[in-house]
Amino acid sequence: MAEAIGIALLGAGTVGSGVSRALASGTERYATRVGRELALRGVLVRDAGRARDGVPEGHLTSDVEAVLADPGTHVVVELMGGEEPARGYIERALSSGRHVVTANKEVMAKHGPELLAVASRRGVRLLYEAAVAGGIPIISPLSRDLLANEITEVTAIINGTTNFMLTEMAQRAAEYDEVLAEAQRLGYAEADPASDVDGVDAAYKLAILCGLAFHVVVSPEAVARQGIRDLAARDFAYARELGYAIKLLAQGRVEPGPGGDELLATVAPTLVARDEPLATVDGVRNAVQVEGDLAGRVLFEGAGAGARPTASAVLADVLEVARDVATGRLPPEAATYAPARVRPPDRILTRHYLRLTVADHAGVLAGIAGILGRHEISLASVIQVEADARARTAEIVITTHPAIAGRLQEALGEIAALEGEVLEVGSVLPIYADGSAR
Amino acid sequence: MAEAIGIALLGAGTVGSGVSRALASGTERYATRVGRELALRGVLVRDAGRARDGVPEGHLTSDVEAVLADPGTHVVVELMGGEEPARGYIERALSSGRHVVTANKEVMAKHGPELLAVASRRGVRLLYEAAVAGGIPIISPLSRDLLANEITEVTAIINGTTNFMLTEMAQRAAEYDEVLAEAQRLGYAEADPASDVDGVDAAYKLAILCGLAFHVVVSPEAVARQGIRDLAARDFAYARELGYAIKLLAQGRVEPGPGGDELLATVAPTLVARDEPLATVDGVRNAVQVEGDLAGRVLFEGAGAGARPTASAVLADVLEVARDVATGRLPPEAATYAPARVRPPDRILTRHYLRLTVADHAGVLAGIAGILGRHEISLASVIQVEADARARTAEIVITTHPAIAGRLQEALGEIAALEGEVLEVGSVLPIYADGSAR
Repeated sequence: MAEAIGIALLGAGTVGSGVSRALASGTERYATRVGRELALRGVLVRDAGRARDGVPEGHLTSDVEAVLADPGTHVVVELMGGEEPARGYIERALSSGRHVVTANKEVMAKHGPELLAVASRRGVRLLYEAAVAGGIPIISPLSRDLLANEITEVTAIINGTTNFMLTEMAQRAAEYDEVLAEAQRLGYAEADPASDVDGVDAAYKLAILCGLAFHVVVSPEAVARQGIRDLAARDFAYARELGYAIKLLAQGRVEPGPGGDELLATVAPTLVARDEPLATVDGVRNAVQVEGDLAGRVLFEGAGAGARPTASAVLADVLEVARDVATGRLPPEAATYAPARVRPPDRILTRHYLRLTVADHAGVLAGIAGILGRHEISLASVIQVEADARARTAEIVITTHPAIAGRLQEALGEIAALEGEVLEVGSVLPIYADGSAR
Repeated sequence: MAEAIGIALLGAGTVGSGVSRALASGTERYATRVGRELALRGVLVRDAGRARDGVPEGHLTSDVEAVLADPGTHVVVELMGGEEPARGYIERALSSGRHVVTANKEVMAKHGPELLAVASRRGVRLLYEAAVAGGIPIISPLSRDLLANEITEVTAIINGTTNFMLTEMAQRAAEYDEVLAEAQRLGYAEADPASDVDGVDAAYKLAILCGLAFHVVVSPEAVARQGIRDLAARDFAYARELGYAIKLLAQGRVEPGPGGDELLATVAPTLVARDEPLATVDGVRNAVQVEGDLAGRVLFEGAGAGARPTASAVLADVLEVARDVATGRLPPEAATYAPARVRPPDRILTRHYLRLTVADHAGVLAGIAGILGRHEISLASVIQVEADARARTAEIVITTHPAIAGRLQEALGEIAALEGEVLEVGSVLPIYADGSAR
């Protein structure tokens, strides 16, 4: 058999050890599936003196120059996470003619187009299936299997941590702080949970998905984000009463705008009708729903994170590249796309759910309805609950018909100023509707 | 731009016209995505004098020799269906150095391995994403995205016609003949529905999926089939009472056997617990659930048939091949696999649902339970319903703990022979359990 295909890992965290372990235990079958043997060359870590589970002895090194210069390495697998130095290492590996496989959503969301261009110029591949939705194949289906479609909409649950938290809030009527502590105890959420609960992680992934689905360049800053910190357990109870679940939904779609097609890209806790498939995706699971003009609606569901599912995606990319190396195939040329024209969030039209705490006396609801009406926002449903009989306050839950988000914000400003009448504007959440219902 | 990539279609039914129409309306964007223009060269039909919706004038021909010999054709798309002459045309196209894209599950199930070998020898590709589950990407995810996994189980709803019929039987308490007539009226079922309702179509697709998932050669005759003709509306009512839906489930998995690993491949109306994702896949929709050692459980769901979803899959393959032609990439060498060792259906261990019509007098149930017990089949639940007070008959619905199918058949033979006591052995259906529950 010809020379083995050399693989270097940058990073040996849980995913890195998972990949290393699978390479060791799967040597024979991977050789059959690829046509050449795969050989682990080196594993870059900060402290090479400390042994890592699953990484064979003698492979650990903290010398990045040695790893990147090793002439026996064909494929560099980047699993460090974070923006730098990961981005720089990827660029250097590509520039020196190595194929790169990465699970790094932040780097791909922020620097994907320029890195893909480097790869294309050097005739090597940069693959990143593991950057979005862990073990669920979605990058490759969007790049290949759905390529004949005009994609009209991508709707996804792509952050397992928050999906776990929202599922707990819904099923146990628990409050945010409690489920955050639980998620941290279980290792799902980090000590500083901002990246998950503020939707940053989901925005990175959505930017990557939108780029692939709509053939545009999307900056993650262009994604409008609303986090889950302000949700209350009773929002889930009200939502259920109205026939909805609440999910941190990442949505991308293209609609005509005044100057041409516009991309709408949002991450927000969103009411999803309970008969939608996405409403039943619970716990740490992820799902991506793609709507194409030919294929119709296709759903991909599975484990969105974790060492083994992520290793599954990383290794799929490694095997793909290795088959190219083994057969001497050249990578396809990368198409280049223009930056997306992004619709400002205040111009997005959607239905809304509003929860307000008001003084419990006559005329308050009429005042609120009047303000909404003057801003051309019509009501779909109203629930009024006596919240605190002693304090004489009540809670009003309103769902609107489709309304421009900016107009709603103006109206809510006026509503919040109804002194002595409106005590708090609580949750303001979009309600999901698929393309056919809009 | 270089010479266009020439495409010939064999067949101009609904899928063929869909492909032709998409090629015409998507000319520009497909050229961008591929790097070269695609040009329709010819469309083979039986009667070239009759115009076809969506097929441009002057392209129709009934001269197969001319189509297969056209030097400007790079990709032949076979959409005729059926075994011959489709198989022969595919082989001739491959042998003459053309890439082939097919939606033909029968040809791929029966002759896939030998045709893939022809393609490999000639250095061309044979792609067949559309042969299973229409617009849902599944061939490519199994071949590529899940390639690093040891697949332990494939469980699928891959016949839209029967899924529509079973959904109607469940939701409207309608009987088989009625929903068959409705499916025929709607164009879902053919005048002779055997291929759908006897599980033949699903068995072709399962054989293809098992080959890819388990890296073996599987003959469609090796798939154990049970059709849906004998189901009664009350089976759905009993199943619901027990917490199940009934789906025509195609299941493949590998288990250790006396002489090495054995493939279990079955198509049967199967009870599926209502909290399983597959239990809620209704109407003509399809779904494929794959369980891998790394990825865990991944679900793919979408439209399993229809002109546009099938065209989506056909065109994905066409664009994939066209990118290879455009960049001069050579196809990967095909791996060759050994025939599967298939477990005989009577050695399969599974839980069962049994519906029996019995004489309504004391001791009958005891007699039945005694026979089952002597065959080491233990009962999980029993429902006895007074079916017909005048005729003094009752219906007994039994679910068993896991039992060897052959032992159960022996027991049922003895039970059927309880003269004057057991009047009919009605439905005998397996109950689905995923790997973790077995």
